[in-house]
Amino acid sequence: MNNFTFYSPTYFVFGKDEENKTGEYVKRFNGSKVLIHYGGGSVIRSGLLDRIKKSLDKENISYVELGGVKPNPRSGLVYEGIELCKKENIDFILAVGGGSTIDSAKAIAAGALYDGDFWDFYTDKIVTKALPIGTVLTIAAAGSEGSPDSVITKEEGMFKRGATGEALRPMFSILNPALTQTLPAYQTAAGVTDIMAHLFERYFTTTNDVEVTDRLIEALLITMINEAPKVIKDPNDYQARANIMWAGMLAHNNVCGVGRSQDWASHDIEHELSATYDCTHGAGLAVVFPAWMTYNMKHDIKRFARLATNVFNCKMDNDNPESTAKAGIQALKSFLKSIGMPLTFDEIGAKEEDIPAMAHSACYGNKRTGTLGGFATLTEEDVINIYKLML
Amino acid sequence: MNNFTFYSPTYFVFGKDEENKTGEYVKRFNGSKVLIHYGGGSVIRSGLLDRIKKSLDKENISYVELGGVKPNPRSGLVYEGIELCKKENIDFILAVGGGSTIDSAKAIAAGALYDGDFWDFYTDKIVTKALPIGTVLTIAAAGSEGSPDSVITKEEGMFKRGATGEALRPMFSILNPALTQTLPAYQTAAGVTDIMAHLFERYFTTTNDVEVTDRLIEALLITMINEAPKVIKDPNDYQARANIMWAGMLAHNNVCGVGRSQDWASHDIEHELSATYDCTHGAGLAVVFPAWMTYNMKHDIKRFARLATNVFNCKMDNDNPESTAKAGIQALKSFLKSIGMPLTFDEIGAKEEDIPAMAHSACYGNKRTGTLGGFATLTEEDVINIYKLML
Repeated sequence: MNNFTFYSPTYFVFGKDEENKTGEYVKRFNGSKVLIHYGGGSVIRSGLLDRIKKSLDKENISYVELGGVKPNPRSGLVYEGIELCKKENIDFILAVGGGSTIDSAKAIAAGALYDGDFWDFYTDKIVTKALPIGTVLTIAAAGSEGSPDSVITKEEGMFKRGATGEALRPMFSILNPALTQTLPAYQTAAGVTDIMAHLFERYFTTTNDVEVTDRLIEALLITMINEAPKVIKDPNDYQARANIMWAGMLAHNNVCGVGRSQDWASHDIEHELSATYDCTHGAGLAVVFPAWMTYNMKHDIKRFARLATNVFNCKMDNDNPESTAKAGIQALKSFLKSIGMPLTFDEIGAKEEDIPAMAHSACYGNKRTGTLGGFATLTEEDVINIYKLML
Repeated sequence: MNNFTFYSPTYFVFGKDEENKTGEYVKRFNGSKVLIHYGGGSVIRSGLLDRIKKSLDKENISYVELGGVKPNPRSGLVYEGIELCKKENIDFILAVGGGSTIDSAKAIAAGALYDGDFWDFYTDKIVTKALPIGTVLTIAAAGSEGSPDSVITKEEGMFKRGATGEALRPMFSILNPALTQTLPAYQTAAGVTDIMAHLFERYFTTTNDVEVTDRLIEALLITMINEAPKVIKDPNDYQARANIMWAGMLAHNNVCGVGRSQDWASHDIEHELSATYDCTHGAGLAVVFPAWMTYNMKHDIKRFARLATNVFNCKMDNDNPESTAKAGIQALKSFLKSIGMPLTFDEIGAKEEDIPAMAHSACYGNKRTGTLGGFATLTEEDVINIYKLML
């Protein structure tokens, strides 16, 4: 196990109706002038936004609103939000929505206290200062409610890139599983896939002897495999929604990823897909992950065989561990298909002829220096080969 | 899953040599006049205390010392520490040691900002204010380095009781697994048992549909079963020590226990043993837990059978799940014996004739109201019967 620090000071408030306490938590964390940031009409139609405003009113907290966050959130709205914060002297940002909204809120929070272009943080600068953020989560997926990360797409060049920094961890996050019950099955399944991807990205490591985090990751993966089919079958299954929602936070606040090398190449490879075709990030990951695994299995057959046996209940073939490893990848594909996720380029409208440009952007775009990954180091050629496995 | 809040804002610093940064972290959390609290001679003999003082000197932080914490820490030293804090205007308490030292430091931290008798917190009062605490951990066991809890023994009446409150969570905790390498095998195994007990106490619940926390608890239990034999065989196995140390924190910061009822009767039953015979807490738990399980199995055979299959690798007997449940308890006993833990009264010097007094104290002592537990509600008679199973 490598040396590490772990700091997850977000105050999590979990369960039915807890969003009605939003005002209390904004007050607890000293918010007095709030920017409420959200996406489209669903938070308005469902009455969620009204309930939240009511709870802010109750605490005499004033607010302005900025809606319009789109999936794969864009830099344009971030610039607008930063201006608004400066003009209105905002001291707290409240994100009401899923990962896209929270990530957009984080970008605004960092940009509001920075004199340069906020995009610097999405190139190579660590965020050390940001306005305090609170979240009311409506989708279990990105884990942004407990993470120090944010991903934004810059319209100029269509770069989809991430920023990080402890200052981006929310002060509080309110997680009410019932708020996710209205999500369409496809979005629910894409969220599950995103959560599983965050776990895989930590599972595939070059660090030895990390049994405790290996076991935790496996535990959360099994949870997803057991609970996801329940919510696909019955969208109103509160308990299964609850299990997925808490697992989604734990999959990405890094409690399972400390002390070990990680590999985020698959996220980078997917980001090109969602930047190019505007597909749902989780659906893109369903296409990418089996391909990434198939291509990189050779680097550590034992680890892939362990995943197959411990998570997908495959039988270990000691004479031919590669066949066990392959059976695990096949089981993952079957699972993803069973919850309605795509597995090929065709299914997300991606095109073979775009592969070279996407591989080049993944490896060299926005100041990148040529290789991706940690478990396996991928060149532009490797990335091309991985995309080809998705055809 | 029940509604819950989860807040674990401790800054964890994990790995080799990290104790040399103690001064930096005290400074980061605004400590300027520190009480260094520790136990016996081992932290002096090993040079650990000197290294820590050096790191405080480097940051120009002044300090006074209070050593002498004993296992099953006593109220007498706590009163002394509280006086010292008031006299010396201490603004930060640094605990260097294991759970006993950290618990004693927490009691002093709470008492230093309280006008009444600190024991009120160990009777029924929640701690809402305390001096900030930092820890340098030397034993993986109690989980106090990441918990809001403290257990102290009051000499008058020999009550061993717990206090709780978010204010008792350390600001930072430094966990260097190498510092645990000098521990005798018996203390190491007792620590492992304590960690497993914290997991069992969360596992045995009356809350349904808590797959995510069930799986996390099982993951940490499996980690203990896999890693403990390695450190018993080779005390210098840093990697196994590291896995146990991080698991020990996670077993008790409540990340695995949120949203579900818990059952702490076995800790209460053990506290009478360590208060009466001054045995190591973990060793006492090794005696108590199989007995508690055997007595309470009837309340949820399925849960015990699940533990047996998912953690102890027993084969499920669907026609007779009780036999599977029993096999699990037997496997736990075998495991505890294999790492050198006691299983009976005799082995810890406990006496049958003390059973009635201990059962009475557990149920009625220090303002208790007659019953213990949550998974199973235990009367004084039940507690007597459980003690008898340990003979």
